[in-house]
Amino acid sequence: MLSAWSVPETFLFGPDTRQCDLAMELYSGIEHLGIVAPHGHVSPALLADPQARFANPHELLVKYDHYLFRLLYSQGVPVEALGVGQTDYDARAAWQTFCSHFHLFSGTPSGLWLRLELTRLFGVTEKPTARNAQAIYDQIDGQLQTPEFTARALFRRFGIEMLATTDPATTDLSQHARAQADGFSVVPTFRPDAVLHFGRAGWAGNLAVLEQFSNRSIETYATLLDVLRQRRAEFAAHGGTATDHDAGQVSLAPLPPAEAERLFGVALAGRLDPQQAALLEAHALFDQARLSAEEDGLVMQLHVGSFRNHNPLLFHKYGPDMGSDIPQPVNWTHGLRELLGTFGNLPDFHAIVFTLDESTYSRELAPLAGHYPALRLGPPWWFFDSVMGIERYLDAVSETATLYNTAGFNDDTRAFASIPARHEVWRRTVANWLARQVLRGILDMEEAHRLLRLSARDLAVQAYRFDLPSEVSV
Amino acid sequence: MLSAWSVPETFLFGPDTRQCDLAMELYSGIEHLGIVAPHGHVSPALLADPQARFANPHELLVKYDHYLFRLLYSQGVPVEALGVGQTDYDARAAWQTFCSHFHLFSGTPSGLWLRLELTRLFGVTEKPTARNAQAIYDQIDGQLQTPEFTARALFRRFGIEMLATTDPATTDLSQHARAQADGFSVVPTFRPDAVLHFGRAGWAGNLAVLEQFSNRSIETYATLLDVLRQRRAEFAAHGGTATDHDAGQVSLAPLPPAEAERLFGVALAGRLDPQQAALLEAHALFDQARLSAEEDGLVMQLHVGSFRNHNPLLFHKYGPDMGSDIPQPVNWTHGLRELLGTFGNLPDFHAIVFTLDESTYSRELAPLAGHYPALRLGPPWWFFDSVMGIERYLDAVSETATLYNTAGFNDDTRAFASIPARHEVWRRTVANWLARQVLRGILDMEEAHRLLRLSARDLAVQAYRFDLPSEVSV
Amino acid sequence: MLSAWSVPETFLFGPDTRQCDLAMELYSGIEHLGIVAPHGHVSPALLADPQARFANPHELLVKYDHYLFRLLYSQGVPVEALGVGQTDYDARAAWQTFCSHFHLFSGTPSGLWLRLELTRLFGVTEKPTARNAQAIYDQIDGQLQTPEFTARALFRRFGIEMLATTDPATTDLSQHARAQADGFSVVPTFRPDAVLHFGRAGWAGNLAVLEQFSNRSIETYATLLDVLRQRRAEFAAHGGTATDHDAGQVSLAPLPPAEAERLFGVALAGRLDPQQAALLEAHALFDQARLSAEEDGLVMQLHVGSFRNHNPLLFHKYGPDMGSDIPQPVNWTHGLRELLGTFGNLPDFHAIVFTLDESTYSRELAPLAGHYPALRLGPPWWFFDSVMGIERYLDAVSETATLYNTAGFNDDTRAFASIPARHEVWRRTVANWLARQVLRGILDMEEAHRLLRLSARDLAVQAYRFDLPSEVSV
Repeated sequence: MLSAWSVPETFLFGPDTRQCDLAMELYSGIEHLGIVAPHGHVSPALLADPQARFANPHELLVKYDHYLFRLLYSQGVPVEALGVGQTDYDARAAWQTFCSHFHLFSGTPSGLWLRLELTRLFGVTEKPTARNAQAIYDQIDGQLQTPEFTARALFRRFGIEMLATTDPATTDLSQHARAQADGFSVVPTFRPDAVLHFGRAGWAGNLAVLEQFSNRSIETYATLLDVLRQRRAEFAAHGGTATDHDAGQVSLAPLPPAEAERLFGVALAGRLDPQQAALLEAHALFDQARLSAEEDGLVMQLHVGSFRNHNPLLFHKYGPDMGSDIPQPVNWTHGLRELLGTFGNLPDFHAIVFTLDESTYSRELAPLAGHYPALRLGPPWWFFDSVMGIERYLDAVSETATLYNTAGFNDDTRAFASIPARHEVWRRTVANWLARQVLRGILDMEEAHRLLRLSARDLAVQAYRFDLPSEVSV
Repeated sequence: MLSAWSVPETFLFGPDTRQCDLAMELYSGIEHLGIVAPHGHVSPALLADPQARFANPHELLVKYDHYLFRLLYSQGVPVEALGVGQTDYDARAAWQTFCSHFHLFSGTPSGLWLRLELTRLFGVTEKPTARNAQAIYDQIDGQLQTPEFTARALFRRFGIEMLATTDPATTDLSQHARAQADGFSVVPTFRPDAVLHFGRAGWAGNLAVLEQFSNRSIETYATLLDVLRQRRAEFAAHGGTATDHDAGQVSLAPLPPAEAERLFGVALAGRLDPQQAALLEAHALFDQARLSAEEDGLVMQLHVGSFRNHNPLLFHKYGPDMGSDIPQPVNWTHGLRELLGTFGNLPDFHAIVFTLDESTYSRELAPLAGHYPALRLGPPWWFFDSVMGIERYLDAVSETATLYNTAGFNDDTRAFASIPARHEVWRRTVANWLARQVLRGILDMEEAHRLLRLSARDLAVQAYRFDLPSEVSV
Repeated sequence: MLSAWSVPETFLFGPDTRQCDLAMELYSGIEHLGIVAPHGHVSPALLADPQARFANPHELLVKYDHYLFRLLYSQGVPVEALGVGQTDYDARAAWQTFCSHFHLFSGTPSGLWLRLELTRLFGVTEKPTARNAQAIYDQIDGQLQTPEFTARALFRRFGIEMLATTDPATTDLSQHARAQADGFSVVPTFRPDAVLHFGRAGWAGNLAVLEQFSNRSIETYATLLDVLRQRRAEFAAHGGTATDHDAGQVSLAPLPPAEAERLFGVALAGRLDPQQAALLEAHALFDQARLSAEEDGLVMQLHVGSFRNHNPLLFHKYGPDMGSDIPQPVNWTHGLRELLGTFGNLPDFHAIVFTLDESTYSRELAPLAGHYPALRLGPPWWFFDSVMGIERYLDAVSETATLYNTAGFNDDTRAFASIPARHEVWRRTVANWLARQVLRGILDMEEAHRLLRLSARDLAVQAYRFDLPSEVSV
């Protein structure tokens, strides 16, 4: 028989007992703060509909979580056995497969988040195994049917003050409007990747969707830019404060206008080569920065460094987001030169950057953020949103950039029910890290309390320009 | 007078006392497990001959260990003073020089291994110095003459369950056969570098040796591939389960067959330029992977990132392996794309990779191994097979890839008598690292025991497909 | 009311209490050692004049410290508000601005150094704030007028045994001579960057200054080399033992002499393109190494990896050193090949290298320094001269290169009054790091005492060939 499965009060604190005690003291001061979630991938549909809820435990926790199924896949579990990419599948059988392999998540961030979710939210008291899988399924499934488990009820229960979603340029924003009308602060983030990744398969189709949506014929780059400008204004009118952009490499650089138009013509003709595509994308991204800096003040987020769809087999079968996006080295010092040289000294331009190349934190990003007023460092992203990933990040950036030049925490999740768990892991890990600094005489408790409060909530409010009160200002 | 030199029971544990206690508890559960040594450079001759033993303390411990003489060389000790590269030299004088500089090894992995070997195996009770050098020489030398110190006796005493050597394609395998016939599990590993490094000086001579060995004229690449296919089968018939390949960069990619043949012709003509050599090597390596994936199931090991023979002076005087192989950056994400895209989803293909670029652990290797079923991460290699190197490795890979996607430990040594010491440092360091995770509530003791057992022995058995019982399966 | 602001006796020790105690024991053994400062940017004028002192607290502590104003700038404080680049400004107002933002330095190395300086040197007992700024100004300003606060008095009080400055090729060295004549060991370091950075704006003017200084017409590269050879001799005659060179990338490689002359002609004609400039600089740097190795034995320092003046706005307004020099990746393994292949085995050639790319410590620099007799690793440079930067450095280099192949500590500062603070942070951090090794059984106390003594002082003496007694030799 398994002993009771739970989360200790000192979870993630230590290993030193004095550090543990101090971390507890610090953490108890911010534990009950509301959650500000400035970047993530929750569907706005969940909050638009008062009755929206989750189909079953497997769909809630496993089916759409590529953090989970990539690891199971690496250990020989076919994604089909988890219902991934399948419309017709047996959720109980898939859940059984998942629980049978639950031990693989020992020590992983997903394992920690699941432990917090299952014990705290659903009252599960045993670690999932092949034996108890169906009983746990029943326990969760029963709760999902109750009024306390609609997405809106959970939003209140989680204490979410602000939730930003991530939305294509062609989003109509009515779901955000419905959620807001009922008092849920759910705001959109403008992510025009689909129409700015000129070199990807499907670009022409994406552009056609934008033409239809905007009711304009887009035959020049200038028209595209103008359509995006208007869409940005509509996002802002629905509470959006930021844009988001994904790129494999750091590249933002303007072309002469005529050259940009020429390349756009080549793109429309379907004949853009990869090098031309890279130049045009760099130009378009630079223009999005210009709109932020000179026109609408939207905060620009850059997520850079993922080599997408590394596994052709899974991509051809099931498309993107199958857990095979793999990081690659990036060069921020060179790649941001033109952007920061042009806009980096403007007080009203905010750029928040995210990297998958940890070696750039101390070498490039902390020195850049510790100089340019425009730049803030996003929290550890993706594979690095983990206890040790967070600790390495704090070690690498705090001395050169200081936490003041960071943007607090993002959960970056599509798994709505995991939001509190992810913020709790961040807050506890930061508290424990600060406690260590206090013990060594590097910080005093006043400084530690202040930095924890900022990291837990207020830095995110300020970096993303949310219209929320902020107790501690930078 | 020096205090007694020894190894404390809590060696490498801590610094926290609770961590120390927990590590001890974990370690005591696996301390007596047999040693599985799936990759190394011990000579099979040592185990083929029942009477094989070591000439003297200096040859046993110093003369052939480039970890030692490179460091002494960096501090101004000529390699000649250590007998390196010399047939006629004074072993006692060389040993004296070594002991006079023993303090240079404080805190190095070589220093820790030597401490374990000298105190445990030979009962030395003083740290070597100029003063006690000859007494220690006498003490060890006397023991080396006894029946307890033949290589075979040590093999038993060390509790080695399986030892894999690393052998050129032209190895006749009779030594392995003799060892096995007498009950010593010593298996070969197929390393065809000499005939696949088309661009290196000496390649033509190496090919000639293979022609003679196989009694075939190798005038086409197809013939070479066929000869290697047969040799792989003979290695497998002698218990070999793996191949091994060394490369400066990650590059495995097929050429059109006619192009491969054309380049092979250029190679035979002695006119291959470096770029052509790289293309042909990448093709040949891809073909070795294909044989593993589609024909014989041998596990493919890739050791990548060493810039060989950086010091021309020592290379011209004494050849390779003089301690001047220096790591360089590598790109696994791009370099493994073709290999993993083609074979990475096959359940019967196993690739184990080793890097000298630590920045790739969290950025590239852990995400790759946490996705592709075929990929396992080899343990910290060479300069990183050290207490802190192991800790950085565990930190970098455990959260994204999990230890389940690693291949346990390799000692990778040519120093036979150091094998137990190297495994002990690994096991203790892992135990201490796990204890820290337990104290912070990240793992429970059941999980820690399981992961330690796997890391200490069973992961190696499974990753290398050894025919040995495995108590805990992944 | 603020509690008393001070530095605890156990500053930077821990977090473990046993580690704290051991660190204290180790540190107390070297705490009172004199300071050897082999590389920095203090003006020799300060020590040449018996009455030289500091204008006011703001000029002493803030105005010229780009570590401070870059961080304030990143948080929106205009550099002008700090008097930077201004001749006519209000020092008290600037100081007020600085103190109002003092909290930004929590946990940064600048914050720790300032705490040590303000409390120890000036007896300040409150953390600076907007409220107490003027009172602290008064307190420091009053002391700066006293005889105890001339630069020479501070030099004695700090216990500086040797201070090396960094000086252009055109320095006349009379200030060093005056300081030495009065018993202050202040020696020059030869830094010919201005005349060897052939591709930079201003090079022609810099060459003209050298022509005037040396009273020679420099129309060939051979003449330039000869002039520099003579200047090196004059530096050596004034006690100089080293040269220093700054470069964005690692590149030292000889050209055929005729080609070097041809490119020098192109440079004189003002038509050198960037690629030609890089080739000529690599050639010239290689020649400086040759002079060290074959002629004058000056220790060669290489500071590599800074992308200078990343922010064009500040550069155009105020010139270099405005806090916008940003690190970039470098490749030491390839870049040092030619240098070390040629001179790396010579016992009398010493090269000391500094990197801003931490990923190269374990991958490239430690293996290189752990092999070549000529190479020593400089201490953590610039952004990495911090508690955690030092710890990462020790972790990364100690196992492969050993501390014996490092060059001890450099404060690298232009802030004279911060010298003791910087050495203290280094010494305490090393002591604490060694204590951890002792607790884990990796080092014994004898080894730890020895390594601490070496790191605190004696390694610097030996690596820089200073004519000072050295208690412990490598």
